[in-house]
Amino acid sequence: MDALDKKMQFSNIANHLSQVAREFCQRGWAVGTSGNFSAVVTRDPLTLAITSTGIDKSALRAEKIVQIDEQGNSMESSLRASAEARLHLMIAGELGANAVLHTHSVWSTLLSELKANQGGLSIEGYEMLKGLRGVSTHQHREWLPIFENSQDMAALSDLVKAQLRQNPNVHGFLLRGHGLYTWGGDISEAKRHVEILEFLLEVMGRMVGIDDRGASAVAYEGRLAVAKR
Amino acid sequence: MDALDKKMQFSNIANHLSQVAREFCQRGWAVGTSGNFSAVVTRDPLTLAITSTGIDKSALRAEKIVQIDEQGNSMESSLRASAEARLHLMIAGELGANAVLHTHSVWSTLLSELKANQGGLSIEGYEMLKGLRGVSTHQHREWLPIFENSQDMAALSDLVKAQLRQNPNVHGFLLRGHGLYTWGGDISEAKRHVEILEFLLEVMGRMVGIDDRGASAVAYEGRLAVAKR
Amino acid sequence: MDALDKKMQFSNIANHLSQVAREFCQRGWAVGTSGNFSAVVTRDPLTLAITSTGIDKSALRAEKIVQIDEQGNSMESSLRASAEARLHLMIAGELGANAVLHTHSVWSTLLSELKANQGGLSIEGYEMLKGLRGVSTHQHREWLPIFENSQDMAALSDLVKAQLRQNPNVHGFLLRGHGLYTWGGDISEAKRHVEILEFLLEVMGRMVGIDDRGASAVAYEGRLAVAKR
Amino acid sequence: MDALDKKMQFSNIANHLSQVAREFCQRGWAVGTSGNFSAVVTRDPLTLAITSTGIDKSALRAEKIVQIDEQGNSMESSLRASAEARLHLMIAGELGANAVLHTHSVWSTLLSELKANQGGLSIEGYEMLKGLRGVSTHQHREWLPIFENSQDMAALSDLVKAQLRQNPNVHGFLLRGHGLYTWGGDISEAKRHVEILEFLLEVMGRMVGIDDRGASAVAYEGRLAVAKR
Repeated sequence: MDALDKKMQFSNIANHLSQVAREFCQRGWAVGTSGNFSAVVTRDPLTLAITSTGIDKSALRAEKIVQIDEQGNSMESSLRASAEARLHLMIAGELGANAVLHTHSVWSTLLSELKANQGGLSIEGYEMLKGLRGVSTHQHREWLPIFENSQDMAALSDLVKAQLRQNPNVHGFLLRGHGLYTWGGDISEAKRHVEILEFLLEVMGRMVGIDDRGASAVAYEGRLAVAKR
Repeated sequence: MDALDKKMQFSNIANHLSQVAREFCQRGWAVGTSGNFSAVVTRDPLTLAITSTGIDKSALRAEKIVQIDEQGNSMESSLRASAEARLHLMIAGELGANAVLHTHSVWSTLLSELKANQGGLSIEGYEMLKGLRGVSTHQHREWLPIFENSQDMAALSDLVKAQLRQNPNVHGFLLRGHGLYTWGGDISEAKRHVEILEFLLEVMGRMVGIDDRGASAVAYEGRLAVAKR
Repeated sequence: MDALDKKMQFSNIANHLSQVAREFCQRGWAVGTSGNFSAVVTRDPLTLAITSTGIDKSALRAEKIVQIDEQGNSMESSLRASAEARLHLMIAGELGANAVLHTHSVWSTLLSELKANQGGLSIEGYEMLKGLRGVSTHQHREWLPIFENSQDMAALSDLVKAQLRQNPNVHGFLLRGHGLYTWGGDISEAKRHVEILEFLLEVMGRMVGIDDRGASAVAYEGRLAVAKR
Repeated sequence: MDALDKKMQFSNIANHLSQVAREFCQRGWAVGTSGNFSAVVTRDPLTLAITSTGIDKSALRAEKIVQIDEQGNSMESSLRASAEARLHLMIAGELGANAVLHTHSVWSTLLSELKANQGGLSIEGYEMLKGLRGVSTHQHREWLPIFENSQDMAALSDLVKAQLRQNPNVHGFLLRGHGLYTWGGDISEAKRHVEILEFLLEVMGRMVGIDDRGASAVAYEGRLAVAKR
């Protein structure tokens, strides 16, 4: 691929990523400059297009997307990527994902606290699960691991990598008090995964407020029975 | 009707459906490529315009609406309809509906779980009910059946058809853990039915969170007494 | 005022009303063709510009606003006003309001049920109350009456009129299971009143979910004590 | 700086402030003409650009931003600033903030009531806290003071000033039953602070509804333990 082609490919990726970022910001999933969005530009060596750090996503333009190398350093821009770029690179390298999207939503934050002691969240019996890659029935149990949040990105990346190797079928994970990571074969699939998981987290979060009082215990048991058939 | 007229009619329908889909996606009722929206193009034989499967509704264009025959097969496009097209065809054929809209909302998902054991949801005493075709007073009791979700569309379609024959006055139904189906004499009426039912489901869903603690027991009894007068 | 001036005035009012209607629909306060919005065109005789019945507010254009006479009949258009136009005419005539806005929101519907047995809702101690005409401190107690809903508009209008004469200082009222009516000296003031009251109803509605468990009893008592000082 | 430069600087500030105001209104944080937004134009003497009082923020244009002097009087416009301009001037003068943003949200109103008796709100352990100036880890405890609301702006300003001198590291405060004040080195930073604090207030507010029932007591203790390590 010659230089012009590469530039056009990067430009297309950057446009797509910035459009997704604006839409997610509007939905309240990337306010206050939170959230990081990336996609693979080249595989060998691995380089990513990724949102630069500290940028307001509400009016994000493609110019604020930077290309980074395998060490997470900006290749041509004075803009820096977030320290979390390391997690994006690990996921892209380890899982072969071509896009990694990380959102900060109210419901993911809330559930990541409430369910932290269980180490994760089990989501099953919902039609929406079929929007996850490779899932073809609502009778699926999705395990969404929750990791303790950390500012030590090297340690966190290693911890997550070890878990993902043990659970290669997960479609995302939560960082406690922090947010959601998910990915996909391309930006559109990763976007779909964000929307699916955020939708299900909202359903689960609203259910907790009712369920903890036992009000829906019967309904829940019924659902689990169906899902386990 | 000659070929050009047919094409223009399909084009108008496709434009209207895609506009409704974008608006519903923006409201959070069709995220993650969920939801299917259809309208009758011809009655004899029955053909539908319907959203193709796996499409992001946030920027849906009319080009992603396909025309399907009575077996649910695409007539001129390489795009496929969802397997749920079978339910759309059944509703259009059985009830004479000219538009069928299927949404995935947080509140319909939540209530379809909480009320599954009762087999449905009773909604009464609300002014908003008057937005449903043929309802002229808030003193109306709307029964919204809930069916167990299934991936066997033939079986599900037969089950729903049998129920609709017994309850021909319902304006919609829920699939458990899945979402809402409603319909109308045209796209505008079906859209109105979605908005009415989603509004009432949100009211009922928020009420459950309060009512289960008995806080509003008195208020509820009063309402039912009024509605039953 | 000559004919052309009258036409321009009506046109300006119709544009303003339709803009407010679209914005309220977008906020979820007028979905499913619900809601009616009016403003006085002439005082003697009393004529109103009002949204025609059964119209989707999401893309409402000024052409769907009709002018009605004191009996609620359309003056020049084939479009009809809602039967609730009678309430708009009564409020405009009785209170001298130049704009009357009626919304259907989730929170007004929910609270109108929960508080129906008390005959109304007391809102006090909030800064937002200062947005209501004539209120200059948060230490104000606003009484929002709740009336049983009815399809007999003549009877309902007489009932509300009698109450408004006894409580001329209220800024709005709720119809049970139905929605909010408020008004103002012009469209902008009435719009402000809708936004203020809907905001406070959401605060009160969310508080009920917490307060009924006694969790905020102390906080509440403190607030009331402050407000009563 | 000559007169033309000054005018351009004011114009840029006014455009930026009005854009932020429209966006916040759309998010429901400045409805019903509520909210005030300001930025420093000159330091010596201190003058601010600030939204004029009683203006609908949904379509705010730069023309509705006025320049005020140290006494809060409009310098060239017939439009007046809100009485709360005094608080903006105090914060800009006392803390060296170049932008002060004041929002009225449902969650800030609700929490300011529920936590008033504790004199403030403690927020800790959330990644979003890193969006606050000078905070570099989620293991941070942010104290958000709550002051009794008052219409006596001189007294309120003195009270807040005294507290800010004792707690110079806070990033904002709540007025009870009223709303949030926050600030920053420029408009973008202050906007980020609003988004961060409103996000965290929503998380806390939704958690209260669950936590007060003890459902998440264990999870909470876990979180605090982590944050205190």
